Amino acid sequence: MTQRPIDSNTIRIFDTTLRDGEQSPGASMNTTEKLEVANLLAELGVDIIEAGFPISSDGDFEAVKTIAEKIEGPTICGLARALPADIDRCWEAIQANPKPRIHTFIATSQIHLEKKLRKSPEEVARYAEEAVKRAREYCDDVEFSTEDAARTDRDYICEVIERAIAAGATTINIPDTVGYSNPWEFGSLIEHVFDKVSNVHQAVISVHCHNDMGLAVANSLAAIRAGARQVECTINGIGERAGNASLEEIVMNLATRSEFFGFRTGIRTEKIYRASRLVSNLTGIVVQPNKAIVGANAFAHEAGIHQDGVIKEKSTYEIMTPESVGWRGTSMVMGKHSGRHAFTDRVKELGFDLSPQQIEAAFADFKDLADRKKDVFDEDLEAICLRAQELEEIPDVEVYKLENLETIATLKGMPKATITLTKGGEILEGSAEGDGPVDAACKAIKQITGTASRLEDYRIAAITGGTDAQGNITLTVAEDDFRAVGRASGPDIIVASARAYIQALNSLESKKKVAVRTDKAESLLGKQP
Amino acid sequence: MTQRPIDSNTIRIFDTTLRDGEQSPGASMNTTEKLEVANLLAELGVDIIEAGFPISSDGDFEAVKTIAEKIEGPTICGLARALPADIDRCWEAIQANPKPRIHTFIATSQIHLEKKLRKSPEEVARYAEEAVKRAREYCDDVEFSTEDAARTDRDYICEVIERAIAAGATTINIPDTVGYSNPWEFGSLIEHVFDKVSNVHQAVISVHCHNDMGLAVANSLAAIRAGARQVECTINGIGERAGNASLEEIVMNLATRSEFFGFRTGIRTEKIYRASRLVSNLTGIVVQPNKAIVGANAFAHEAGIHQDGVIKEKSTYEIMTPESVGWRGTSMVMGKHSGRHAFTDRVKELGFDLSPQQIEAAFADFKDLADRKKDVFDEDLEAICLRAQELEEIPDVEVYKLENLETIATLKGMPKATITLTKGGEILEGSAEGDGPVDAACKAIKQITGTASRLEDYRIAAITGGTDAQGNITLTVAEDDFRAVGRASGPDIIVASARAYIQALNSLESKKKVAVRTDKAESLLGKQP
Repeated sequence: MTQRPIDSNTIRIFDTTLRDGEQSPGASMNTTEKLEVANLLAELGVDIIEAGFPISSDGDFEAVKTIAEKIEGPTICGLARALPADIDRCWEAIQANPKPRIHTFIATSQIHLEKKLRKSPEEVARYAEEAVKRAREYCDDVEFSTEDAARTDRDYICEVIERAIAAGATTINIPDTVGYSNPWEFGSLIEHVFDKVSNVHQAVISVHCHNDMGLAVANSLAAIRAGARQVECTINGIGERAGNASLEEIVMNLATRSEFFGFRTGIRTEKIYRASRLVSNLTGIVVQPNKAIVGANAFAHEAGIHQDGVIKEKSTYEIMTPESVGWRGTSMVMGKHSGRHAFTDRVKELGFDLSPQQIEAAFADFKDLADRKKDVFDEDLEAICLRAQELEEIPDVEVYKLENLETIATLKGMPKATITLTKGGEILEGSAEGDGPVDAACKAIKQITGTASRLEDYRIAAITGGTDAQGNITLTVAEDDFRAVGRASGPDIIVASARAYIQALNSLESKKKVAVRTDKAESLLGKQP
Repeated sequence: MTQRPIDSNTIRIFDTTLRDGEQSPGASMNTTEKLEVANLLAELGVDIIEAGFPISSDGDFEAVKTIAEKIEGPTICGLARALPADIDRCWEAIQANPKPRIHTFIATSQIHLEKKLRKSPEEVARYAEEAVKRAREYCDDVEFSTEDAARTDRDYICEVIERAIAAGATTINIPDTVGYSNPWEFGSLIEHVFDKVSNVHQAVISVHCHNDMGLAVANSLAAIRAGARQVECTINGIGERAGNASLEEIVMNLATRSEFFGFRTGIRTEKIYRASRLVSNLTGIVVQPNKAIVGANAFAHEAGIHQDGVIKEKSTYEIMTPESVGWRGTSMVMGKHSGRHAFTDRVKELGFDLSPQQIEAAFADFKDLADRKKDVFDEDLEAICLRAQELEEIPDVEVYKLENLETIATLKGMPKATITLTKGGEILEGSAEGDGPVDAACKAIKQITGTASRLEDYRIAAITGGTDAQGNITLTVAEDDFRAVGRASGPDIIVASARAYIQALNSLESKKKVAVRTDKAESLLGKQP
């Protein structure tokens, strides 16, 4: 039967929210936002943070470097194709951290060898060896991935893995890159690796599963049962296409059914819900209500929306407590009489680390909201904190500021918006009609600024329950090769939309100035696991 | 080893979107909407439609009866606890259909026996036998479920199943009611049933998995491999808490990896995307972008948002084609020059079955939109069709109609809305301030109508990409035991919100008049599988 690692029943959690997750369409985060996520991941107790793909863009490099400099605790990992330039650049980004890891990869499936790499199996195996050796010259912790492993010939994959371990790889990652496999097939692949790779116990075996068939979590669990001791996953299961295995689902399966699986992780599960909210807020990628563990309805018998008898049911229908994942429901915590001290405490509890200026701005915003809205919920506070963080100005760019906005909408005519902006000392004014007041406001801004960019994506989500809820706007603008995200929230979605649009335009100008190409690199040796 | 049914490699798809799916918080649909879903499920090729739980409310009874009368093709099934009154009422609802099925259930786990039913194992087994016998007096097709099977003693569950089959059950459903199990444990439970139940081949074995741990699809596949030949599932995986196994994921696993699983279903996969959109539109339950098969990013390499080389990648990263599930992307189909004929055709292709009056209203709406919005997408047409269907008036209730709406919003002051409604011949006017223009409009309506209801839930989603997108509003109002949903969409979200609110208030009045309690029945023998 399968040989298993002898040393441990602990599963290492490798979080790739900032790398694979961030590659989701529209999910791009800036360095500040990535650092915030990394901070929370460290608090959550993940073992490894994959912080980005340093060679793919200057922005990615910067983010990985900042995280490596500022985050202590988890291993900080950067991704690199099996190319010297990638590995050198990756090391440059992560070297400041006390626990750096280089993660290098190459595709091994026949279809990728033929159609993408146009290399022979032997050439690819040599690329792998060389890449691992080069990485090991920089650091002791080197992970190697066989991209598209689930569709790779089993003898060949064992050969590549054996050679990568011999070359010094300390972790071997086996990805189901296209989300093609299932627990039986994937589990048997991992067993096969344990059976056939003679030096397998010199490395930790890891898996990285995609969710195209809805099986990423089941496949990861199958791999753990077959001997894997690291799983790669993301908060909310975000990632390319249908995303990655969801961290919260893997962790809660192992925790809730520990008597069945017999493994443990280092995750502080009570931080899960907070992490889910933060990533959803920052990426604008909504979590569906019926998402396992972190969806709004996941603990619906707790939400007070159910029938009589909910108390009686609790013990009969509940397999884990909401508290165990830090789910608080929509809890009213603050009102107009809450003071600065209570406010600052709560903001900290919610996981925000604001500067004194940001606290100042956030508190003023809170007082303003509390005057108009009877109950201020945690979700409202989150929106306020995110808004305060947005207020940091972008250096070196003279930014547009929203000075006034007036919209008139009637049932029959076209809605009209009049906008006043300033840029430096200059006052700019204009008005436009649109399909709705939001459209009118954005058209007016477009006209005033004369931007050549186009609006690529516009999303809106209500943060709390009623019509006095805060709307959360995430939008993307693009011009040539540049792309920028704007985000704003507030009780008036017209104002929030205008703010988000202006923020995105300012950010776009900044990006054009520093000439950072935001599109990810893509060349000779392909993409990512 | 496990005995398997000898007759078939076909998996029966039992869709419970209209029963378990509709129990999701906030998902309630009216009879017209349920009929529309049932129609599409029939087109999709599901084998069994569980249309509702007839005894739970008059509204549910009505919906099941209407579906039984109007839908031909799939078996039409109603749910009933193991009580004579439930079974009688269920039969009354479904008897008009040529292929009726009664689905009766009782909980079998120790925790449910003790804490919920307060009955001995023998008493429960007798309830099961009696229920199945009574159901068989009405019809030949009887399904029996052992609620909370995954936590039930294995010897006891086999005894209950054996006795239910002996009493005449033709399908035995084994639910993981609390979403507690995993593929290994659940697969072994099904194998155990095949090993120990002597008359197991006289019934089809079915499973019903919940997604609390993210494993509902994997558990269903494990059960199929162990011998189950029916799976219960829902469109988009909606359902109580984290939902049910998702129909589209189960079907596409079996279809895409048919060489591995060796089973087939009768589903026309190219209708999947359309079904997903319809259910999301009608329930207001969003599908997250990273949802497998039907999420907006599931085929993101198709969306034109990716990097260079997407064509080269297609063959290397794509395991199923978007076309195979009917995914069309955001396709521009219509503009201001499109005629009535093209419009009517497209509406039909999108799966809508509109009356001549509804076509009239929808076409006028389309022309109006096309005048203001250059590109009209399929998603816009869907919104228009849904709006046309909403326009049907509620009989016997004098309804409020929106005659005029004017909102003024500025950056600093409070937004203000002035509303004119009519009810019968009467003109009603009022204005209010609010946190945002939507809030102001709703407050004005509340004031004018003097409604005692409270707004329980308000959701907004943008239908297409830009700020000229149509907003899709779903809201719920509640008063005492009555609850009503309003839905509206349009390019101006203030107007759409006002329309949805008025629609909900009208519907609430209608419900109060016919005194239908909308909350689900809940008593002696518990809930549902």
